[in-house]
Amino acid sequence: MQDFVPQDENFERRVKESFSKQKMMHTIGAVLSKVQPGRVEISLAFRDDLTQQHGFLHAGVVGTLADTACGYAAFSLMAPDAAVLTVEYKINLLSPAVGESLLAVGMAIKPGRTLTVCSADVFASREGENKLIATMMATMMSIRGREGFTG
Amino acid sequence: MQDFVPQDENFERRVKESFSKQKMMHTIGAVLSKVQPGRVEISLAFRDDLTQQHGFLHAGVVGTLADTACGYAAFSLMAPDAAVLTVEYKINLLSPAVGESLLAVGMAIKPGRTLTVCSADVFASREGENKLIATMMATMMSIRGREGFTG
Amino acid sequence: MQDFVPQDENFERRVKESFSKQKMMHTIGAVLSKVQPGRVEISLAFRDDLTQQHGFLHAGVVGTLADTACGYAAFSLMAPDAAVLTVEYKINLLSPAVGESLLAVGMAIKPGRTLTVCSADVFASREGENKLIATMMATMMSIRGREGFTG
Amino acid sequence: MQDFVPQDENFERRVKESFSKQKMMHTIGAVLSKVQPGRVEISLAFRDDLTQQHGFLHAGVVGTLADTACGYAAFSLMAPDAAVLTVEYKINLLSPAVGESLLAVGMAIKPGRTLTVCSADVFASREGENKLIATMMATMMSIRGREGFTG
Repeated sequence: MQDFVPQDENFERRVKESFSKQKMMHTIGAVLSKVQPGRVEISLAFRDDLTQQHGFLHAGVVGTLADTACGYAAFSLMAPDAAVLTVEYKINLLSPAVGESLLAVGMAIKPGRTLTVCSADVFASREGENKLIATMMATMMSIRGREGFTG
Repeated sequence: MQDFVPQDENFERRVKESFSKQKMMHTIGAVLSKVQPGRVEISLAFRDDLTQQHGFLHAGVVGTLADTACGYAAFSLMAPDAAVLTVEYKINLLSPAVGESLLAVGMAIKPGRTLTVCSADVFASREGENKLIATMMATMMSIRGREGFTG
Repeated sequence: MQDFVPQDENFERRVKESFSKQKMMHTIGAVLSKVQPGRVEISLAFRDDLTQQHGFLHAGVVGTLADTACGYAAFSLMAPDAAVLTVEYKINLLSPAVGESLLAVGMAIKPGRTLTVCSADVFASREGENKLIATMMATMMSIRGREGFTG
Repeated sequence: MQDFVPQDENFERRVKESFSKQKMMHTIGAVLSKVQPGRVEISLAFRDDLTQQHGFLHAGVVGTLADTACGYAAFSLMAPDAAVLTVEYKINLLSPAVGESLLAVGMAIKPGRTLTVCSADVFASREGENKLIATMMATMMSIRGREGFTG
């Protein structure tokens, strides 16, 4: 992990406020568990209503957590007046998402003025063991001065 | 769209049964609206509890719909005893997901014995207009003869 | 294919001039065979010195053609003073790249002020038949007013 | 980096033999500089005939190196009679590929019986400094018992 210096000393508060406005996170029970400059963790307890046909957590849920962790890892390094949007993400699902909980760790790889490239690893915790179950590469965009886009 | 001949004449029933077991689809209110050989449509009415911080539908929801549409487009062409798993997907988000509803159209591009490559387009419907808001490319895998994997 | 109106009526000349500066294209024998607004074709005759270990054209060559076709499809719609850079691309290889020649068709999907999302299909021609062997999704960036970046 | 145990004790020789058959590597002057279980390095000296229109090494060259490094990282862990094919790769280009040389480091993330997920980082060396200029995520496939596919 690289050492990043945030542009905004209140980055943690900004990330938390924005995350709390994501109703989707509340709906699926995702929790923002750690915020550092360029690094964000999001966790989720297994819930039966988020599964696919084999009883695993849905690939879309795994993608949602990883995308959000990437977005806030990027956002934590952006200017105080910037908003963040996902340009694209790519995820490889390595193992079925089974276990008691998931942890998505998003990290900035290359922050830029307009675009920030991020990666995320998603781990499943099962009977005390953590297993890497998915890995993402994503491009995030900083939006400034556009109406309706804050946070 | 290519013309595909399904291996299993009961492909539509199999897709519907499997989709109905995806509790995540029920949780977010997604509906399987069309099933053809190698082509599947899934729709979703806008819901405030699925939004991100700017009030758009969350990128993860868009990804979930597109992934599921790709998965069943692939599954519709698989052998009767096969299960489907997502290997990877990549999504580009073209415009904010706003409007009354979303429609994800998944299509098989290249079905294979083990892997099927698919694409999906996601459209947002707003005041009578349909707009392409995201496009996905995904790799799906056929799983046969492994315990716990049916449908 | 969508109908795009180029910002620059001299788009074709600009694309050709930029392509001719790509020494890599000359090195691998790639030819710019068609330029339309938001759509570019690049062809390549099979050459033994571009193969991988099984005698197929190397996946990197296929990627190079598709990336370049996407880049110029985007560039054809950009402002006269813009340069184009690849942000990212993703390619699925559907079949081995065998045959007498390859044709990469790049298309703009969503042109934007800063980013343009493109797709490309790559076809192999073999004994009179054309086969889709690869498909790409790419994000291109318009660079303006930065020294050293023209075309 | 994880510790992987190769299935074939002669993995290094197998990788080297296969690499030497890739005429494309010879054409662009790429050199296999290191082979470990699940980890492969490929280097390339800057050459003017591999550039794009701004004088940087072409994104396709960067992709070719990274793809090949991923392929052999996967191959080093495969069974003695397996061949390797690229299913898909995704690359984010972080900075222009300028400098005296490039180094692509491919690593297996999750080796599997059929599919192996890999990542690659590409560094540019310029006046004694190494800079991460691109990062890839790729899916490789093990092919066994199919005619014409060895190594």
